[in-house]
Amino acid sequence: MAFRFELIRKDPTSKARLGRVVTDHGAFSTPAFMPVGTLGTVKSLTPEELVEIGAEVILANTYHLYLRPGHETICRLGGLHAFMHWEGPILTDSGGYQIFSLRDLRKISEEGVTFQSHLDGSPHFLTPEQVIEIQRILGVDIAMVLDECIPYPSHYDYAKASTSRTTRWAERCLQARRETDPALFAIVQGGMYRALREESAQGLVKMDFQGYAIGGLSVGEPKTLMRDVLGWTIPFLPENAPRYLMGVGTPRDILEAVMLGIDLFDCVLPTRNARNGTLFTSSGKLSIKQAQYAEDKRPLDRGCRCYTCRHYSRAYLRHLYLSKEILSPRLNTIHNLFYYMEFMRKIREAIQRGRLVDLHEILFSHLNDPERDDLTNTDAANGIL
Amino acid sequence: MAFRFELIRKDPTSKARLGRVVTDHGAFSTPAFMPVGTLGTVKSLTPEELVEIGAEVILANTYHLYLRPGHETICRLGGLHAFMHWEGPILTDSGGYQIFSLRDLRKISEEGVTFQSHLDGSPHFLTPEQVIEIQRILGVDIAMVLDECIPYPSHYDYAKASTSRTTRWAERCLQARRETDPALFAIVQGGMYRALREESAQGLVKMDFQGYAIGGLSVGEPKTLMRDVLGWTIPFLPENAPRYLMGVGTPRDILEAVMLGIDLFDCVLPTRNARNGTLFTSSGKLSIKQAQYAEDKRPLDRGCRCYTCRHYSRAYLRHLYLSKEILSPRLNTIHNLFYYMEFMRKIREAIQRGRLVDLHEILFSHLNDPERDDLTNTDAANGIL
Repeated sequence: MAFRFELIRKDPTSKARLGRVVTDHGAFSTPAFMPVGTLGTVKSLTPEELVEIGAEVILANTYHLYLRPGHETICRLGGLHAFMHWEGPILTDSGGYQIFSLRDLRKISEEGVTFQSHLDGSPHFLTPEQVIEIQRILGVDIAMVLDECIPYPSHYDYAKASTSRTTRWAERCLQARRETDPALFAIVQGGMYRALREESAQGLVKMDFQGYAIGGLSVGEPKTLMRDVLGWTIPFLPENAPRYLMGVGTPRDILEAVMLGIDLFDCVLPTRNARNGTLFTSSGKLSIKQAQYAEDKRPLDRGCRCYTCRHYSRAYLRHLYLSKEILSPRLNTIHNLFYYMEFMRKIREAIQRGRLVDLHEILFSHLNDPERDDLTNTDAANGIL
Repeated sequence: MAFRFELIRKDPTSKARLGRVVTDHGAFSTPAFMPVGTLGTVKSLTPEELVEIGAEVILANTYHLYLRPGHETICRLGGLHAFMHWEGPILTDSGGYQIFSLRDLRKISEEGVTFQSHLDGSPHFLTPEQVIEIQRILGVDIAMVLDECIPYPSHYDYAKASTSRTTRWAERCLQARRETDPALFAIVQGGMYRALREESAQGLVKMDFQGYAIGGLSVGEPKTLMRDVLGWTIPFLPENAPRYLMGVGTPRDILEAVMLGIDLFDCVLPTRNARNGTLFTSSGKLSIKQAQYAEDKRPLDRGCRCYTCRHYSRAYLRHLYLSKEILSPRLNTIHNLFYYMEFMRKIREAIQRGRLVDLHEILFSHLNDPERDDLTNTDAANGIL
C-alpha cells in the first residue's frame, strides 16, 4: 500500500514539525489526533459525523477485531474500511497493550504470547508474524508491530529483557511484512530507563520502519518523567518518518509532546470523558451532571462551532445525561472530539506561523505544577493565530 | 395556537381518509405515525435525522417531562421545541397511561390523581386542569386530556365508573383550556364494552374537541376485540376532526385501523424493537443477533433507501449489536422508523389512488389468523402504487 510522509515545515522555536501523511485512503495533516474506534466504530458516531468534526484518520484495535468479529470475517466482508463505512486512513494498534493488560490471563515466550480472550476465556496464541498477517487481512493503512507495554514501575532487569524481546519481535514483524502490506510502525519501549529507550530507538531505527511510535508512556508515571522519556527518545528517531506517541493524552500533554517532535496521537480521553459527562471547554473541564447547569441556556462552550454547541443548551445535555438517553453520549462525543480536532488545528496553524511556543505560553504558562492539565483561556490563542 | 384539520380525500372502498393537520410548527399529512420521544428525545436520534427519515410530527410525554426536567424548567429554556431542537409539530400524551400504570403507587379521586414518582418516590397530585397547564407551559402543538386507561380485563362496573370520570375530567380540561393553548384532543375510553365506548364517544363529541383519541386499546386484548372496539367507536366521531389511536401498533394494526377511519398513531414498537435488535423488513422481522447474519453482506432490507441500508451490512449491524456499541441502537432505529414512515407513505398513496383495500389484500390476506402480524412481500405493494 502507498505510504508517504512529507515534512512540510520545522518550527524554528521548538522541535515541532508540520507534516502530511499520504495513504491509499487519503492524506492527513500532522500533528494529528486519531479518534479511537477500537471495535470498528468510534463509539456513538457515524463516519459522516467524524468527517464533519474534522477527523482525517482513525485508530482501530487488532486484538479486539481479531476476537470479534474476527479478521477473516472482516476480510470476507470487504476489509475494515468497507465493514465500518470509513473511507479515510485507518491505523491499527497491534493489541500488544491490550494483551499485556490481561495480566494473569497471558503468558509470554520468545515465540509469542498466549492469552485468554477477555470475552469468553478462549485460549489464543499470537506471534509477531500473525499480528502482521491480521492487519494485512484487515486491510488497514498503517499497522503496528507486536510489542510488550512494560508496566510502571518495572525493575531494570525486566524492562531490559522485555525491551530487547520487543526489538526482536519488531524485526520478525518487518520480515513478515510484504511489499503490498500496510505501512509498518515500530514501537520504542524501554520503560523509564534512558539507556533502554536509547537502545530501543537505535535498534529499531536501524531496521528502517515507515514510522516510529513511543509506547509504554501514560501508564501512571509522573508527567515530568513522560517528558523526560520523550526527550531521551526522540533525538534517535529519523526526521523523515512520523513519530507517534501512543495513548496520549490531555491537550497539555499533546502540545508539549508536539514541541518535542511528536506527530501523531491517540487517546480515549475525549470519547470516554464524553460518555461520562465530562466536557472540554475553552475555560476548562465541565461536568454536565452538576445542578448548576439545570437551567443553563448556554452552549457547552461559547464560540464552539460543533453541532452540539450550535443546537443544544447545557440544560438539555444535562437532562439527556441524567435520563441516560443515548443521544447524550452522541452529543457529548461530537463536542469533545471537535474540541480535540480544533486544538490540533490550532497547533498546526501555530507551527505554520512560527508561534507554537507562544501558544504554549498563553495556554499553560500559569500552571506551575507540571501535573496540572487544566485548559484555561484557550480563546486567548485566537490572538496569535 | 393555530390548528386546522383538512380532510383531503375519503377512500371509496374503506373508511380511510387522507388529511392534513396544520399547526404553528408546520403541517403533517395523515394517516401519520408519530415517533415516540418520551423525554424530549426520540431515543438515539437527532431532529435532523428524524426529518431525513420523513417524520413530520413527534410525540412526547407530559408525565415524564413534568417529573424530569420539569415543565417550568423547560418553559424557562424556551419551551419544548427549543429545548429539544425539534422545529416540527409536537403532541404530548397527558401521562394518564403512565400514571395509571403505576398501580400501587397511585390513588384516584374525583378531583385528580395522587401518585409517587417512579424516579424517586416523591408524592405528586395532578388534576385535569394542571395537566392542561403543564402542556400549555411546555408549549406543544397538541395536548391530550387527562384520562384513565382502564386495564384489560376490567369488570363492567369499574369500566363504567372510570369512563364517566374520564368524561367529566375531559370537560374540566376543556374548561381549563385557553384560546391560545395547544389544540386539545379528548380520549375515548370504555374498556371493551360497546355501550360504554358509545357513551364515551358521544359524551366527548358533544363538547367539541379539536381531535379525538381512542385509548385503552393494545392493552393485552385479542386483535379482533381491538378491531371491534374501533368499529363501535369511530362512527360516533366527527368527520372533520383527526382521530388518533393511542399506542398502536404493528404495521397490520395500523393499516387495518386506517381502513376503519383512524388518522394518527404512535407506538414504541419500531424504536424499542430497534434497540432490542429486531428489525422490520419487507420480508418480515429480522433478529440481527442471529448467527446466520455473521457474514451477511446484504443490507437489512433490499431496496430500502434508509441511511443504514445504504451504508451497512447485516454483518456489521450484528457486530455492533453483540458488542453493545452505541451506534447499534442508532442505526437500527433509523431503519425501523424509516420503515414505518415508508409504510405510512404507502398507505397515503394507496388512499390517494383508491387502492387501499388492494394494499391490505396484498400484504395481509394470506394471514388467516387475525393475531398474526408478519409483514411479507411488501415489495408487492409497489405493483399497485
